[in-house]
Amino acid sequence: MTNGKLILLRHGQSEWNASNQFTGWVDVNLTEQGEAEAKRGGELLVEAGVLPGVVYTSLLRRAIRTANIALNAADRHWIPVIRDWRLNERHYGALQGLDKAATKEKYGDDQFMEWRRSYDTPPPELADDAEYSQANDPRYADLDVVPRTECLKDVVVRFVPYFEEEILPRAKKGETVLIAAHGNSLRALVKHLDGISDADIAELNIPTGIPLVYEIAEDGSVVNPGGTYLDPEAAAAGAAAVANQGNK
Amino acid sequence: MTNGKLILLRHGQSEWNASNQFTGWVDVNLTEQGEAEAKRGGELLVEAGVLPGVVYTSLLRRAIRTANIALNAADRHWIPVIRDWRLNERHYGALQGLDKAATKEKYGDDQFMEWRRSYDTPPPELADDAEYSQANDPRYADLDVVPRTECLKDVVVRFVPYFEEEILPRAKKGETVLIAAHGNSLRALVKHLDGISDADIAELNIPTGIPLVYEIAEDGSVVNPGGTYLDPEAAAAGAAAVANQGNK
Repeated sequence: MTNGKLILLRHGQSEWNASNQFTGWVDVNLTEQGEAEAKRGGELLVEAGVLPGVVYTSLLRRAIRTANIALNAADRHWIPVIRDWRLNERHYGALQGLDKAATKEKYGDDQFMEWRRSYDTPPPELADDAEYSQANDPRYADLDVVPRTECLKDVVVRFVPYFEEEILPRAKKGETVLIAAHGNSLRALVKHLDGISDADIAELNIPTGIPLVYEIAEDGSVVNPGGTYLDPEAAAAGAAAVANQGNK
Repeated sequence: MTNGKLILLRHGQSEWNASNQFTGWVDVNLTEQGEAEAKRGGELLVEAGVLPGVVYTSLLRRAIRTANIALNAADRHWIPVIRDWRLNERHYGALQGLDKAATKEKYGDDQFMEWRRSYDTPPPELADDAEYSQANDPRYADLDVVPRTECLKDVVVRFVPYFEEEILPRAKKGETVLIAAHGNSLRALVKHLDGISDADIAELNIPTGIPLVYEIAEDGSVVNPGGTYLDPEAAAAGAAAVANQGNK
């Protein structure tokens, strides 16, 4: 049997990537550059001959549109779609909407990096009546509790079991699955796939719009640890840019 | 219980609507006008407060993109999506790709109208090795036989049972369901919903991009026979334009 494949695709540049604001669950749109990145992502799938048979997305517009645009470019717009909140970006708590550079200046480098990269310390909670709260968003009406903040560990706890139950079995059967999601939900997944420690995951950055392919054997193990970026040069430059966020 | 709702949405103008070619299962894109129609369709949903909780689409790009654009405009991009070939446009057989006006001129008005509007006479079959055949299209790999031509009756036979099994039960439970599909698959559905005769269905034309809402009672019956267009004036003008196709 052919190995299955997981294609991890972080959404293209969003409006708040461009304006350097913490986003989390706020449902901002892609920029024109983000749309172009998504299209390029789809073209890379065609060039590599890695064509998904099913797509999973978060419930956020930037990931949904990235999937739509990439799949349209790859002539795979017609494949089945499954959306789930567990693929959502990390909820950024009270930081949602704040300017990253101003936050870094106000709270200092150490606090800033702890909020961004600590594995198990979440930012302060966002009040349910705050402008950027999702407490009353109809798309989360079925959740027992809508998050008010999350650390990366919280994302691992909500996403990895869903991945193992819903997505991995498809890859084990040889399917090619596109996962269109976010910087931190994909970091949570990569941490799990590559067995990265709680400390080392802080250093891992995922660039926007460049497909990262993991080959999965029939027993569920990863054939190519670390995965394979379809455009390695662009991926390295993109990851460096993510690491540099918060600097003016 | 609130009545359920079916929202029928014919895709916006496609490239071959614009160039007056028979399309069928050929996977042409929307034009810019078609994208604008889809966006307007989504805005009409918001204005009417008719917000779908789930969307069904065909496997064709023009319906899929219409759904994506309309849902994005209605802030409903995050709802579950189900795609099925049974919602596809009627397969137009050997006419796929031909210019409508030239076909009318070559074969005469009677033959032309029979191909377009006869309930049970399909156009000639399209050869599997023809340019516009879907015989080897991977999206139909699971079908026992990929159609080579269809009449409207064939569409009723494939779509209505699927509708009754998969879609109608949701409406009976009070859900609001968006059905993003095509001129003839929606004519097949309207024929069924409104009990239109095989002869009278020839006169029914569905405009592009304007939501047509049927209210459905708990027993599955239609509360508002004929349905309600969310923009009745534009719908009347659009239907007249469809009826007029084939004229230069």
